[in-house]
Amino acid sequence: MKQLKISNNVIRRLPRYLRALEELKAEGADRVSSSSLGEKMGLTSSQIRQDFSCFGEFGQQGYGYNVKDLSTEIASILGTDRGFSLVVVGVGNIGRALIESFCFAQYGFELAAAFDIREELVGKVINGVEVKNVYDYKQVLEGKKIDAAVLSVPKRLANEAANAIADLGIKAIWNFTNVELSIENPNVIVEDIHFSDSLLTMSYYLAESIDINDSDSNKQEKM
Amino acid sequence: MKQLKISNNVIRRLPRYLRALEELKAEGADRVSSSSLGEKMGLTSSQIRQDFSCFGEFGQQGYGYNVKDLSTEIASILGTDRGFSLVVVGVGNIGRALIESFCFAQYGFELAAAFDIREELVGKVINGVEVKNVYDYKQVLEGKKIDAAVLSVPKRLANEAANAIADLGIKAIWNFTNVELSIENPNVIVEDIHFSDSLLTMSYYLAESIDINDSDSNKQEKM
Repeated sequence: MKQLKISNNVIRRLPRYLRALEELKAEGADRVSSSSLGEKMGLTSSQIRQDFSCFGEFGQQGYGYNVKDLSTEIASILGTDRGFSLVVVGVGNIGRALIESFCFAQYGFELAAAFDIREELVGKVINGVEVKNVYDYKQVLEGKKIDAAVLSVPKRLANEAANAIADLGIKAIWNFTNVELSIENPNVIVEDIHFSDSLLTMSYYLAESIDINDSDSNKQEKM
Repeated sequence: MKQLKISNNVIRRLPRYLRALEELKAEGADRVSSSSLGEKMGLTSSQIRQDFSCFGEFGQQGYGYNVKDLSTEIASILGTDRGFSLVVVGVGNIGRALIESFCFAQYGFELAAAFDIREELVGKVINGVEVKNVYDYKQVLEGKKIDAAVLSVPKRLANEAANAIADLGIKAIWNFTNVELSIENPNVIVEDIHFSDSLLTMSYYLAESIDINDSDSNKQEKM
């Protein structure tokens, strides 16, 4: 069913579709048209139909989409039913915040273990997860299939830790270090959360809004 | 110079261009062609020329771009020279991590203050920034121009805090709460860091890589 080589832009819109559909479900909606889904998300209905056509047919012309079915389908395309498991590597502020309050299970991920190198953290239990010494990884992970790692170590350790994770055969790294990782194994999937890109985007819109206001008041002064 | 209504996709590529150019600068490169910049970023050279054409002319046909000038220009378009200032609202794990290790100044933002509601945090100094009681905001912010707020409060407080920030006249919110904010003032710029969208994108690529491997081994078995 799933086709390969779908553009990254389409893939990155899927979680947004899923969020919009979950909201519609929560509001009690049964069906949604591509135009009202588009309005909710700031997309055109033809864009939506084009995105969905990458994965086959989800709706019926003139009837819109069944909200529950479509969200189940998109969640499945995103792999939330695959039973993935992950470990957190680095239980500093970010790692701890994710363990404490990010609902991995909601997105289909089992949080299997957490590791740190600092003795004062090893043995602590955060939200039911015990922090293990990173050097005990073999013993802790024995017999477990781990698909991904959250990388939340300090910057200076980022590349070393990423390569060690890759050497364990873990296939994907969710990178919170704000470092562009250099991983020797080219097959490792790296998903960056680049805080700086997001802040700079906000900065652009802030600058733009100030420019618009300034030009509006200049116009008023000239009138 | 700056034109309005440039598409969000173009805007979101600007910080990526800036990162690529900073890397080139660090490697000692003086000039870069649109094709080698494209190769570095996984874009076509015509895409790059099209993006840059939104902001006027940056390069000279056949000579490529001056790395330093182009990065200065893009940084300026992104507003890093505007002298923006921000406050952190909510000094939990995420807020603390940002104050401790995110280099706001590198992106042109002055971190002016940090607020929390919890008495045990008020008065603590993190990376030179003293945590203030959120109820003292008037006194703390008096005479200061604050452009943006980092919102890093617990989910249940997200909307209340966001609206309070908007009521202070702060124009932009960098939202780390993983909540879709409902802010009454429609002019407030909200930049979400949606952790779930990023995790689900990684999940998709993980599922895809497993499917490819499975289909490869099926093919081998049949041979």
